[in-house]
Amino acid sequence: MKKRLFTPGPTPVPEQVMLRMAEPLIHHRSPEFREVMARVNANLRYLFQTSQPVVTLACSGTGGMESTCVSLFSPGDTVIAVNGGKFGERWAQMVRAFGLNEVEIRVPWGEAPREEQLLQALRSHPQARAVYLTQSETSTGTLTDVKTMARLVHEHSSALVCVDGVSSIGALEMRFDEWGIDACVTGSQKGLMIPPGLAFVALSPRAIEAVARSSMPRFYFDLRRALKSQAADDTPWTPAITLIIGADAALAMIRQEGIENIWARHESLASALRAGLRAVGLRLFSQAPTASVTAVVLPAGVAWADFNRALKADNGITVAGGQGDFAGKIFRISHLGYYDALDMIACMAAVERALAAVGYGFVAGAGVRAVHEAMMQQNNGIATIKHS
Amino acid sequence: MKKRLFTPGPTPVPEQVMLRMAEPLIHHRSPEFREVMARVNANLRYLFQTSQPVVTLACSGTGGMESTCVSLFSPGDTVIAVNGGKFGERWAQMVRAFGLNEVEIRVPWGEAPREEQLLQALRSHPQARAVYLTQSETSTGTLTDVKTMARLVHEHSSALVCVDGVSSIGALEMRFDEWGIDACVTGSQKGLMIPPGLAFVALSPRAIEAVARSSMPRFYFDLRRALKSQAADDTPWTPAITLIIGADAALAMIRQEGIENIWARHESLASALRAGLRAVGLRLFSQAPTASVTAVVLPAGVAWADFNRALKADNGITVAGGQGDFAGKIFRISHLGYYDALDMIACMAAVERALAAVGYGFVAGAGVRAVHEAMMQQNNGIATIKHS
Repeated sequence: MKKRLFTPGPTPVPEQVMLRMAEPLIHHRSPEFREVMARVNANLRYLFQTSQPVVTLACSGTGGMESTCVSLFSPGDTVIAVNGGKFGERWAQMVRAFGLNEVEIRVPWGEAPREEQLLQALRSHPQARAVYLTQSETSTGTLTDVKTMARLVHEHSSALVCVDGVSSIGALEMRFDEWGIDACVTGSQKGLMIPPGLAFVALSPRAIEAVARSSMPRFYFDLRRALKSQAADDTPWTPAITLIIGADAALAMIRQEGIENIWARHESLASALRAGLRAVGLRLFSQAPTASVTAVVLPAGVAWADFNRALKADNGITVAGGQGDFAGKIFRISHLGYYDALDMIACMAAVERALAAVGYGFVAGAGVRAVHEAMMQQNNGIATIKHS
Repeated sequence: MKKRLFTPGPTPVPEQVMLRMAEPLIHHRSPEFREVMARVNANLRYLFQTSQPVVTLACSGTGGMESTCVSLFSPGDTVIAVNGGKFGERWAQMVRAFGLNEVEIRVPWGEAPREEQLLQALRSHPQARAVYLTQSETSTGTLTDVKTMARLVHEHSSALVCVDGVSSIGALEMRFDEWGIDACVTGSQKGLMIPPGLAFVALSPRAIEAVARSSMPRFYFDLRRALKSQAADDTPWTPAITLIIGADAALAMIRQEGIENIWARHESLASALRAGLRAVGLRLFSQAPTASVTAVVLPAGVAWADFNRALKADNGITVAGGQGDFAGKIFRISHLGYYDALDMIACMAAVERALAAVGYGFVAGAGVRAVHEAMMQQNNGIATIKHS
């Protein structure tokens, strides 16, 4: 059976990227690899919309987040973290694990943090050195308005704005310099369309100053070393060579399509799929949905295990289940990365087939028709991936 | 031009492994991936010759070493580290970076640590919690007799024996359980024959107890989490999926060849190549050579840049140069991983061609003949990779 991944990481990797990665290995301390690294460094700046350095680390997104935690602060520093889902919760735990004084903004799952919550935290903790935000909270399919939150932080404090962009960079609008972001982390297996194993960290001049001042114990995730190497198109430790070659190929595709077109494509795919989900009577989980991933409430009477089996075993489609308290209650469909309009129609068709298989009542074909119509109305082709 | 890598990491990846990695991605929280992980976990035990757990981390070998540093100790603990090359030096720095009390056994580059040095350090620091050893010091091509050193440590102290096996596992004899090793780290891009981006850490029951007691701040490299996940054939963070699929394929090849045959093949390849190097008048750098990599003294009058250019530009051969004080003075040829007798003959031929090109005087063909004769005398086929 033909298999199709609709999980918010890993996401499908274009065949041409897989084949570039399968070429014979080159050594990482060689002029050939320096050239690759130089292109990757330049294109990462484009991806984050920044003129600042973006460093590449061999680790998952969690490791990238840790690099900010151990490189920007000193023990005892106060850090405000928004916790509104599994990833926000993870960053809150991480900040505490390293002996930082963590102030938590608790947000119910499926909601975005409110401006008043942030202002209240900043007022109560004027000594805060940073605010951690999750742009796209994958566990709940929720978007945080990072642009507005960053503006508020800068208006009311000198705290750094640190963004988990793992499930958003290369999918959702991010203007690192223009929005005043200080640190933004992403992973390879999301919008970047390559397998997991790399994290990328963009750093503002203020963040780079903080790295120089930080006294946290660190070695592998020391951003001072990473920045120094990055400036020479090198890495402090052995890089994950094949994944960086994959990033080179994927970033070339991203440049060719154009980052603004990619952001628009994700909006378009998410909104079309949602039209289809609504047409069969399904309800979104999030009150502030992100275009990276759509979290859908499982209808009453539909057991996740049965629905998932029908999707996967009978239709070859892998989606993500709910996490934490919402395991068995929601499911999540990714729009992240290498998807076009026809993928969304195929996914909707499989969701309809699986719903029918588990006895859920709806007008057969209504979902597919709604996705198709939404795509036709958009009519401007932005849901097509425009590279060769 | 056909390119051939003879660097001690990355090492050549078999085509069948590259192609397995290029297959469409599967999700890491799926029964399919669990099966892969279960096989990898079982075969890693075979690779290290242990019945204990071996955890898989998404990072380079340096990250694997860091995981032991932050998971086995508590701040202020004393740790003895042997520093006899670039990697020993790195581990000494790392131990200090995390606030451990580092006691250093300094060994001149190209020499192995002596038993008396170890005994002296153990006597002077009876509170030492661990001894860090580098089985194969890649920077100098030097072997440490880990079996003897581990025995001495256990006879004279309760310290844990932590081994950097990055450039040795899958190439040199390692009997983790039998020799009483407590922690041993390797990387993916060496004897394991896959690209860089994974580290593997084997842990003894005593090491697992130390992990439970450790109070070092840690998150990504927390071996407590890694062990818990490993027991369920899972990982705490998103794993480097394609590299683990590669490890699955490469470990199957290793099992098929047989680990003792592989150790014998490396001995055989190293000794044959060295016969060739001697036959053209070259001298080994190390006084205790490892079969992973041969460090060769550049003869007087031969400039590294010219010799390397002739090897690489004219013959497609990449070897490694010297590091630290020995940059420009030695070069290093790898035997690590996917090499057979014919590779050594090809490498020797290229070395002869490059030596001739830079005007070094020797009997042309003497090196190739010596390698060939050494291989013929071995006559038992162990230098052939015996899998389909």
